[in-house]
Amino acid sequence: MTEAAPQEAALSEQELRTLDAHWRAANYLAAGQIYLMANPLLTEPLRPEHIKPRLLGHWGTSPGLNLVYTHLNRVIKARDLDALCVWGPGHGGPAVLAGSWLEGSYSETYPDISRDGAGMELLFRQFSFPGGVPSHVAPETPGSIHEGGELGYSLAHAYGAAFDNPDLLVTCVIGDGEAETGPLAASWHSDKFLDPVHDGAVLPVLHLNGYKIANPTVLSRLPESELDALLRGYGHEPLYVTGEDPAQVHQALAAALDDALDRIVQMQRSAREDGVTERVHWPMIVLRTPKGWTGPAEVDGLPVEGTWRAHQVPLPGVRENPAHLRQLEQWLRSYRPEELFGPDGRPSADVLACVPEGDRRLGSNPHANGGVLLRDLPLPPLDTFAVAVDKPGAALHEPTRILGDLLEQVMEDTRERRDFRLVGPDETASNRLQAVFDASGKAWQAEVLPVDEHLSRHGRVMEILSEHLCQGWLEGYLLTGRHGLFSCYEAFVHIVDSMVNQHIKWLKTSRQLTWRAPIASLNYLLTSHVWRQDHNGFSHQDPGFVDHVLNKSPEVVRVYLPPDANTLLSVADHVLRSRDYVNVVVAGKQPCFDWLTMDQARAHCARGAGIWEWAGTENGAEPDVVLACAGDVPSPPTSPSSSPTTATPG
Amino acid sequence: MTEAAPQEAALSEQELRTLDAHWRAANYLAAGQIYLMANPLLTEPLRPEHIKPRLLGHWGTSPGLNLVYTHLNRVIKARDLDALCVWGPGHGGPAVLAGSWLEGSYSETYPDISRDGAGMELLFRQFSFPGGVPSHVAPETPGSIHEGGELGYSLAHAYGAAFDNPDLLVTCVIGDGEAETGPLAASWHSDKFLDPVHDGAVLPVLHLNGYKIANPTVLSRLPESELDALLRGYGHEPLYVTGEDPAQVHQALAAALDDALDRIVQMQRSAREDGVTERVHWPMIVLRTPKGWTGPAEVDGLPVEGTWRAHQVPLPGVRENPAHLRQLEQWLRSYRPEELFGPDGRPSADVLACVPEGDRRLGSNPHANGGVLLRDLPLPPLDTFAVAVDKPGAALHEPTRILGDLLEQVMEDTRERRDFRLVGPDETASNRLQAVFDASGKAWQAEVLPVDEHLSRHGRVMEILSEHLCQGWLEGYLLTGRHGLFSCYEAFVHIVDSMVNQHIKWLKTSRQLTWRAPIASLNYLLTSHVWRQDHNGFSHQDPGFVDHVLNKSPEVVRVYLPPDANTLLSVADHVLRSRDYVNVVVAGKQPCFDWLTMDQARAHCARGAGIWEWAGTENGAEPDVVLACAGDVPSPPTSPSSSPTTATPG
Repeated sequence: MTEAAPQEAALSEQELRTLDAHWRAANYLAAGQIYLMANPLLTEPLRPEHIKPRLLGHWGTSPGLNLVYTHLNRVIKARDLDALCVWGPGHGGPAVLAGSWLEGSYSETYPDISRDGAGMELLFRQFSFPGGVPSHVAPETPGSIHEGGELGYSLAHAYGAAFDNPDLLVTCVIGDGEAETGPLAASWHSDKFLDPVHDGAVLPVLHLNGYKIANPTVLSRLPESELDALLRGYGHEPLYVTGEDPAQVHQALAAALDDALDRIVQMQRSAREDGVTERVHWPMIVLRTPKGWTGPAEVDGLPVEGTWRAHQVPLPGVRENPAHLRQLEQWLRSYRPEELFGPDGRPSADVLACVPEGDRRLGSNPHANGGVLLRDLPLPPLDTFAVAVDKPGAALHEPTRILGDLLEQVMEDTRERRDFRLVGPDETASNRLQAVFDASGKAWQAEVLPVDEHLSRHGRVMEILSEHLCQGWLEGYLLTGRHGLFSCYEAFVHIVDSMVNQHIKWLKTSRQLTWRAPIASLNYLLTSHVWRQDHNGFSHQDPGFVDHVLNKSPEVVRVYLPPDANTLLSVADHVLRSRDYVNVVVAGKQPCFDWLTMDQARAHCARGAGIWEWAGTENGAEPDVVLACAGDVPSPPTSPSSSPTTATPG
Repeated sequence: MTEAAPQEAALSEQELRTLDAHWRAANYLAAGQIYLMANPLLTEPLRPEHIKPRLLGHWGTSPGLNLVYTHLNRVIKARDLDALCVWGPGHGGPAVLAGSWLEGSYSETYPDISRDGAGMELLFRQFSFPGGVPSHVAPETPGSIHEGGELGYSLAHAYGAAFDNPDLLVTCVIGDGEAETGPLAASWHSDKFLDPVHDGAVLPVLHLNGYKIANPTVLSRLPESELDALLRGYGHEPLYVTGEDPAQVHQALAAALDDALDRIVQMQRSAREDGVTERVHWPMIVLRTPKGWTGPAEVDGLPVEGTWRAHQVPLPGVRENPAHLRQLEQWLRSYRPEELFGPDGRPSADVLACVPEGDRRLGSNPHANGGVLLRDLPLPPLDTFAVAVDKPGAALHEPTRILGDLLEQVMEDTRERRDFRLVGPDETASNRLQAVFDASGKAWQAEVLPVDEHLSRHGRVMEILSEHLCQGWLEGYLLTGRHGLFSCYEAFVHIVDSMVNQHIKWLKTSRQLTWRAPIASLNYLLTSHVWRQDHNGFSHQDPGFVDHVLNKSPEVVRVYLPPDANTLLSVADHVLRSRDYVNVVVAGKQPCFDWLTMDQARAHCARGAGIWEWAGTENGAEPDVVLACAGDVPSPPTSPSSSPTTATPG
């Protein structure tokens, strides 16, 4: 099939040669990481002792990821693009590691893994090896904002990164396995929330290599017309790149990328300069290449390349089986490493011809290490918003409504900077935060009717009935160096239990990486909580998210239960300033008693838990919920697994 | 728009009149439940004391649900259909309660709520009232297998109900809010797993009423051509019913339903009688009617009907505001209750003309009370599969592989009955259960290539890379009276935390309803567990699901940690026989030591936790994981929240 075969070749002979050299080098390095712990340049015949004792990793997706890395290099360099890539099939860690090693960003991040033969040997050895690096794209991987273990969140992360980054291109490779997940299936509709004026572009690359671990994928087995209808139904203009001949695919992919990027430039110009407000139908690429492409075609008489058998380690017995070892050597030599690397192991000029410079490299783009771009959020003085408390327990306020006034001011004060977003599943007003609409509308690119309220093409309040999208968008936004808050019904935040698990893991690992700058915390406001859900009943009652996060690392997790409006203001101020935490704030939206003046709330939060003495000594009344909040806690909790509810400033 | 306006009227004048009468009656009853606690038949002018002190409920979706209920009645009766309906917008509880009260199934289930004026008053009063019934479709609702609180799972539940029920029609109303969720978005591809020979039909009705709580919905604001492409991309043939004139919509919906059902019959006949194996493109209906249709057009000068303002209670101030009270009375009288109900409150003959009889009624269909159809699973003697243990801690086996042999036999023994399914996210073989493929292939209706293995149009092993779909399918399957097992990587089962929360709530509530017969337990096999995930790393390591379920009601939850192959066999036998539990079995797929002979395992499981004594006294060795499993536990746990790990037979 040649849908995207260009009329005239997109690449010159020389470009084709050098791009192919880069791709072959990356494939060589990917396979090398899976198998080798010595003899990285094949300067001698492969022997069993060169092979790792335990073979791990995912080969199947790696050639496709490498191909995208190679071709992104070309367009970044040719067009001087500010670009990220989110690697949905990030379990193909060897590919992304290969790409960043080739461009030099890996060695700059980890100087011991030098860009030469010695470094290559370490690169190979460390992969999925005790004391080494994970087999997936992970926080340790330069250029990444997306862990490749649990599937489904790549496209939401990509959109989150693109919001309020008007000059950024975020390519997102979506595996056809991942595409079967719920969160990914919902993410396709994110295009209705992407502002072509203030946001960057997202370029989805749906990689149909046809198989998961053990099965064909649903999307790869649809008739072409059905797949095309689906993608157009999602709002995209799909461009198809299909093949198994490398030269043909290089030409087709280069043409498709040029086409897509030209369209994106034109669409952005229409919206930004010509004032066109019609909804944009962004291009996307469907890349259909064999799983485990260029790897062993058959092993032990069974087809491997182009099948699920290529998913992980296609030749599992190379240490014990001489025939497998020979086949591995043939496979590795098929990339002609002697053309790709000098005798010292440095990549050749041809290999590096497509590689961009400095921060333009995918492994060095600062957006992928968002903390380096992060600015403190402008937070107004709390006294402006505080409620007067003449007598504790006398007057009533809706705490989240008071918080809404503060958030309105934050929204207002970031009108130009555009680095704060509020996300929620259709519940901003239900959660009493509607004051924010005076400072920002709700992001919306689809049709608007006269009866609608607060919808805006340029809004920074994000509402969609998907907790998964709220979470994924916000994660991508925070990881690229911005701020935000997720307001959610308490019971339904469990929908993202697994996503918050993975984000907590990301933060925990990132804290140990000195090169990763701290990012803004992921802040939850859980309201419509269990104590006031009598009307919606059992399905809406669940305080268990606190349990869920409290069994995570106390280095990362904080839970706040502010009992009144002023305490919520103090807590909100604190969590919005904090870094690298997951902060869970549970607060009511129904009227509840005011207990603390603003000064008392501030003092209380500053000295940690003490509400019980206060309540007991000052007026005898007791707050309805125990407070645990920010403050100078003299010593860390003695039992990390059970008492991280007291917090130190982040 | 008149896309589906029929060439000749689908309904006679009389049918139109009686269907409209049923619909008006249902709308009257829905509104009545939200507002009234006295004067149900409006025999006197409305006064404030007739109004509930607290107004709760969801009016917006109710007229649409009522419309579907009315028209399903017609086709069930006309075609003698065995039909269920899954109500995705089940927060419109008043609608489904109205439908089942009109048909009499409600009064048969709850005799105090009689089908007359006295019963109507109780029906109204009990709704979302202390001591009454939930505001959502819930376990308490006759005819339901789907709770309407947390959105996203309706279509997966519908497919689960249809699997292996060849004569069943499962209509599924999908709200356009719910359609934004990840699980629902993924569920559309379930059609690639529905066997037209052995499974029933699923008829999705996408109800575009245009708004959520506070926002327009994404799908309702797509251009028609884009929506059509999307639905065809999902594999469906969409039929459109659009309008706001009741008579026209009645005709169009009747025509569309007839068209859809005719097509379904023909497609099933082709597959079943003519041996056609091409993938079926099932019909579906897009129903575009106003939110809060027939309710107040405006309230206090703001548009309500057809907007998000109709979502919950469109006239909130009727007790205090005489103008609102008058408007409510006008609204209720607009249905002309005196034509619909006799002086005694019984529905008129016109209203009941469309209602089917006996078990054909949606509120009485036995599939919605699946326990009444449930048969014991044939479980083979365990000794056939047991591993020999001459000496504890000497030999190694992969426990899940041994379990696979047992499951193969269960699959084999249910070949004709077809009431057992195994679901998993592409991990059946990875989890070492591949022996089952000797008895059943993997369900798959899409294209098959020569290289594929174990795919089958008629398979009962279900693999898709979506934990949400695995969970949703299995829940629907169990709730309609069948058996199953969900095998999953331990870390990623958190993806369905929220779904299992809701299923546990369903079971807990159902146990208190004497009319609901016990259903088979939801059994998880969690493997690839934290202790053996060094190679996949941090993202794949998480033992927290046990924490997640252990804070649920000990009436419903059981956790088993069998330390070896024979104990796993005993546990599996136990959980597959049990009823109304969520059973979490954590077991290794990697080789681990055999500790107990089959007899010892059986005895151990029968007497509850005792492994430590045994291990200490018999050979001094200790098992690698503490065992908690089935057995005669003399007394219930003293601390319900912390020790439900010991189980009593279900």
